[in-house]
Amino acid sequence: MKLAIIGSGNVAYHLAKAFVENGVSISQIFGRNESELQKISGELQIPFSVKNLENANVYIISVSDSAIREVSKKIKNSDVLAVHTSGSASRNALNGNFRKGVFYPLQTFSKSRVLDYSEIPFFIDAENENDKLLLKNLAEKISKKVLFADDEMRKYIHLTAVFACNFVNHLFSRAKEISDSQKIPFDYFFPLIEETVKKIHEIEPKFAQTGPAVRNDENTLLLHESLISDEQQLKIYKTINESIKKMYNL
Amino acid sequence: MKLAIIGSGNVAYHLAKAFVENGVSISQIFGRNESELQKISGELQIPFSVKNLENANVYIISVSDSAIREVSKKIKNSDVLAVHTSGSASRNALNGNFRKGVFYPLQTFSKSRVLDYSEIPFFIDAENENDKLLLKNLAEKISKKVLFADDEMRKYIHLTAVFACNFVNHLFSRAKEISDSQKIPFDYFFPLIEETVKKIHEIEPKFAQTGPAVRNDENTLLLHESLISDEQQLKIYKTINESIKKMYNL
Repeated sequence: MKLAIIGSGNVAYHLAKAFVENGVSISQIFGRNESELQKISGELQIPFSVKNLENANVYIISVSDSAIREVSKKIKNSDVLAVHTSGSASRNALNGNFRKGVFYPLQTFSKSRVLDYSEIPFFIDAENENDKLLLKNLAEKISKKVLFADDEMRKYIHLTAVFACNFVNHLFSRAKEISDSQKIPFDYFFPLIEETVKKIHEIEPKFAQTGPAVRNDENTLLLHESLISDEQQLKIYKTINESIKKMYNL
Repeated sequence: MKLAIIGSGNVAYHLAKAFVENGVSISQIFGRNESELQKISGELQIPFSVKNLENANVYIISVSDSAIREVSKKIKNSDVLAVHTSGSASRNALNGNFRKGVFYPLQTFSKSRVLDYSEIPFFIDAENENDKLLLKNLAEKISKKVLFADDEMRKYIHLTAVFACNFVNHLFSRAKEISDSQKIPFDYFFPLIEETVKKIHEIEPKFAQTGPAVRNDENTLLLHESLISDEQQLKIYKTINESIKKMYNL
């Protein structure tokens, strides 16, 4: 079986690395960004091209959602399986006569990070049982956690991930703005952040809530609002406190 | 030196436990909630009372911000040091003729959690250098990270903690509502959440941002808004995405 990867972004890089590390060879990595492809190719010893997409049996298309349709048109053979790696795009965002599927890793990827791929849940989907099994076997080369999810379920998984990861990271950015403004090193907050996360393995987050809003401590809420000078920080402060109060009927 | 703790909540319990585990004896734990005091007293072998606050040299008052003033009135001796453990309350929220200080542990406390106290930053403050030194030595029995912070700095530390901990936990609650609504086990998201946190030890959160808003992926943002049926979830979704776009000038 020949496996090709299309794309040179964070997900493409980490998938290629995970496959290579687990003994699955990649026949080609294809894309537009020559310098990124060159780096990946050099590190992982995979042939790359920006011009000729070679024949393969399975193509993993790891590009931005809006590019899936155009990129997938480059696959001219029909007796192949092409999958994308998007959480939100429908399986039918793929455009062509080939068999279609999805290969969605639930993780946040940055090129500079070393990841334990075996713990990453992979949500796969395909048009027929054979392809589902093929994708399951492929994902199981990398991960211990391979599951099926159709378009509808995958959208909600992605939405949940946006709250639990993207939004959480943004709160860290805004928190750091506040501590930076007072020259307080942000790493003072690391034990607190780690405990916040460890806690939810044992206690449901709803029952682990602490802080002024859940205590209905109006004095502290007003004090904090008076300390905040940034408009976006203030909007977040008010919106999340309101949401906390609603959740606990305060 | 006789050290007493006033209060029976999460912070009072963990401070008492941390002291006892590190060989600092507590002469009394005092408060209103007899059943909680009884539990703490039983576990940690500390005398407790709901009626008679015995003499001590140092009192740690670990009660809600709004109760600090009233509770501190119970300390009648003037040649003693009394401190509170609040992030937001001023040192002068303490009411009496005794010497005043603050002993603020930067952590989120739940009674059921076992914590590594040595990693918890303690922010201390007092009216004179002797008391600062006394509090520093006391905190260093528990923690490797003891720092000074006045009222002003401590308020910002607490505000930062609200963003980095309380709000993050609430996002986990809202995320879990979404995954629960689709019967998707929330523990699928744990590797993602852990990586989100690990990442910021190496990459500033501002440079670690991923997700549809920072990619300016309007299609996905609109898709997600159409999936959300809860008013508070939608307000959070829009507010944080707007804040992300502003931060990156999108």
